[in-house]
Amino acid sequence: QFRAEFLEMHPYDQAKIFEEQDEEIRFLIYTYLSPEEMAEVMENVDFELVSTFITEMVPAYAAKVLEDMSTDDAVDILNELDKNKVASFLTIMEKEEAEEIKELLHYEEKTAGSIMTTEFVVIQETMTVKEAMRHLRKEAPEAETIYYLYVIDVDKKLVGVISLRDLIIAEGDFLILDVMSERVVSVPVGEDQEDIARMMRDYDFLALPVVDFQNHLLGIITVDDIMDVMEEEANDDYSKLAGISELEKEGETAFSSAKKRLPWLVILLFLGMFTASIIGRFEETLDKVALLAVFIPLIAGMAGNTGTQALAVAVRNISTGDSGKRSNFSIIKQEAKTGLITGTICGILITLIIAFWYEDIYLGILVGLSIMATLIVATTAGAFVPLIMHRLKIDPAVASGPFITTLNDIISILIYFGLATAFMNFLI
Amino acid sequence: QFRAEFLEMHPYDQAKIFEEQDEEIRFLIYTYLSPEEMAEVMENVDFELVSTFITEMVPAYAAKVLEDMSTDDAVDILNELDKNKVASFLTIMEKEEAEEIKELLHYEEKTAGSIMTTEFVVIQETMTVKEAMRHLRKEAPEAETIYYLYVIDVDKKLVGVISLRDLIIAEGDFLILDVMSERVVSVPVGEDQEDIARMMRDYDFLALPVVDFQNHLLGIITVDDIMDVMEEEANDDYSKLAGISELEKEGETAFSSAKKRLPWLVILLFLGMFTASIIGRFEETLDKVALLAVFIPLIAGMAGNTGTQALAVAVRNISTGDSGKRSNFSIIKQEAKTGLITGTICGILITLIIAFWYEDIYLGILVGLSIMATLIVATTAGAFVPLIMHRLKIDPAVASGPFITTLNDIISILIYFGLATAFMNFLI
Ligand SMILES: [Mg+2]
Ligand SMILES: [Mg+2]
Ligand SMILES: [Mg+2]
Ligand SMILES: [Mg+2]
Ligand SMILES: [Mg+2]
Ligand SMILES: [Mg+2]
Ligand SMILES: [Mg+2]
Ligand SMILES: [Mg+2]
Ligand SMILES: [Mg+2]
Ligand SMILES: [Mg+2]
Ligand SMILES: [Mg+2]
Ligand SMILES: [Mg+2]
Ligand SMILES: [Mg+2]
Repeated sequence: QFRAEFLEMHPYDQAKIFEEQDEEIRFLIYTYLSPEEMAEVMENVDFELVSTFITEMVPAYAAKVLEDMSTDDAVDILNELDKNKVASFLTIMEKEEAEEIKELLHYEEKTAGSIMTTEFVVIQETMTVKEAMRHLRKEAPEAETIYYLYVIDVDKKLVGVISLRDLIIAEGDFLILDVMSERVVSVPVGEDQEDIARMMRDYDFLALPVVDFQNHLLGIITVDDIMDVMEEEANDDYSKLAGISELEKEGETAFSSAKKRLPWLVILLFLGMFTASIIGRFEETLDKVALLAVFIPLIAGMAGNTGTQALAVAVRNISTGDSGKRSNFSIIKQEAKTGLITGTICGILITLIIAFWYEDIYLGILVGLSIMATLIVATTAGAFVPLIMHRLKIDPAVASGPFITTLNDIISILIYFGLATAFMNFLI
Repeated sequence: QFRAEFLEMHPYDQAKIFEEQDEEIRFLIYTYLSPEEMAEVMENVDFELVSTFITEMVPAYAAKVLEDMSTDDAVDILNELDKNKVASFLTIMEKEEAEEIKELLHYEEKTAGSIMTTEFVVIQETMTVKEAMRHLRKEAPEAETIYYLYVIDVDKKLVGVISLRDLIIAEGDFLILDVMSERVVSVPVGEDQEDIARMMRDYDFLALPVVDFQNHLLGIITVDDIMDVMEEEANDDYSKLAGISELEKEGETAFSSAKKRLPWLVILLFLGMFTASIIGRFEETLDKVALLAVFIPLIAGMAGNTGTQALAVAVRNISTGDSGKRSNFSIIKQEAKTGLITGTICGILITLIIAFWYEDIYLGILVGLSIMATLIVATTAGAFVPLIMHRLKIDPAVASGPFITTLNDIISILIYFGLATAFMNFLI
């Protein structure tokens, strides 16, 4: 009766419960559940655990489970296993299924091919509505979605689409040809998953067909997988802005966290040494007016923060396609203007504060001018760097916050000490 | 023939073309398209433009358009208009539709109530499969989705759900009662949209029913709107990490950009003055060893960056619910450990570099120790602040990058100058 109760739950809940069992119980469950039932569980378990589970099963059972999963999910798992293991599973599997999986294994990560599945319903344009319904009933249990039916011609080229909504309203004797929509939106198999997600969101589709360059239907991408893509891409942008290579998951050890964060920190350490050596060049200036050091964190901090703001706006607009219609030059010009406004206001503010607090109007003007110049340059740089990267076909999100912050540290210090050295006479 | 060609396009494409027309052409289009056709366009135009369009239409036409839109989208638009305008539209509208909209207008932003729509298909548990299909065919043109049918009992309480997939496979004479799933997952009307998005993503639903506290079915939330929620929430977290109150859109003026960014910058300016006054307290130390100033940006920069890393991990884990199972104490402990590892490695590295470069082993040890202590404290602080905010029921994403960066500037400078003052004898 464990079986009955377990199976009544939603597969996601089954998976969460399954994940928490220890090895002994898991082995018991493998004997209780049919491969088909286990396939639904495996489609929903945490991606980091699933390869462990698959490898601990009896190979014949595991192969059956993989066979019964959606091909897209099976492929994701196989991509995590080593090649020998994959080959051995593929030989045990049913030939047709193995062929499909083999093909999907070739597509590059994060492209349409890597997230599509081959369990879709396809109908001939010459079928009648009634025939299509009959065909659909037969295919329904296996198909990933039955709510869009893709229509192909004799050459197996994608020529139309009809939603189940339209199909059940249509007269039974009509030809599919006459009731389908010919304006079918499809994506090429190499398309980037982020662009596909944007398309799905704009057009409110539940699935999108994937085609090769000759317009042959290769697979479909369903909205549930696109939600996962959106989450993945958002996490990706977010963690890059924060300077971490990958978001850490619950249950990670401190060592593996440290390993993920260290690369950035070490790079920043060296960049920081470079900043230090620049200040070192102004040692003479600093020796004369030690008070100058007091404002270093203020100026560098403001530079870093404005830079990050501008960066975030630029990266996000690039990645949502919002900046598509504007020229890079006009974006940069606008950011420079924004920097001019924020710089002037912050500059005047800080001049007044220092003039009254330290009773030193010249120092106030120096810091104020530095802040103003810094904000203009830092804001512009924050937008400039991702735009250049986008131009060079590099993901602009790679220009992370820490990088821009450190770049702007250097810029701001050059401006500050440069001005201080030039106007030294007024300061001493 | 403009009409025919225009209407053949996907509503999203229609909307993008419509947006680009100037007033004259728009007025022409209003006369060409029926309110029903225009409703589809309005559902897809940029949210920032739609209230302009609605207000420029002849009121009777506008009311008709709003009536023909999905209620969730109509409500979103009405929420943007002023109260008099809304009231006048509601009086022109069909009474039943107006009532539904009036109710939806009351729900709080970002809750289930504010994103649900009332165009769903509901069937009685006592219907047969055949009757349900007939009912469905009648409702299909109006419904937001027909792929899930929600089942209610005589008290109008939600008792089950059946997917269209299961319905078309079921035998025609069976009662819905016997073929439906009783384990229907629903959300309370006050539920946070972010939690609903997580649920939709986990369970791979295409729609979720919304109920009141007595389990009466109030509306449904569809996956296309959840994709928009996911995008909105991701942008929100991203922009908070970067210290901008709201992401700017294409076409914004530099003034309005500056206005959005200034609040943070001014707060940071004052925090920066505070940092400056702390360094000011160590003027004596600084006068003796001006070289100390050289490493301020390095140490403050490292503190800011580790803090942001830890912050990003914590915020993201809280918001994806991943940290749910772990105690706050164990998260903090883990972050402190991570800081200890990264701090030790970076500390040793910098000690060696400075010892060789500046040929001053004591200065190297001072900076190395400062980096080590700073990384431990800054990493811990980066995780501590969002966890505390979460505890206090404040959105942890509010603890943005610039805030943590500035907090860690202060901490790092206290550590650095504190150590320098204590070990002054070794430095001169
Ligand atoms: Mg799935
Ligand atoms: Mg399969
Ligand atoms: Mg894949
Ligand atoms: Mg990409
Ligand atoms: Mg949409
Ligand atoms: Mg899938
Ligand atoms: Mg991206
Ligand atoms: Mg919509
Ligand atoms: Mg709403
Ligand atoms: Mg929220
Ligand atoms: Mg999912
Ligand atoms: Mg909607
Ligand atoms: Mg949030």
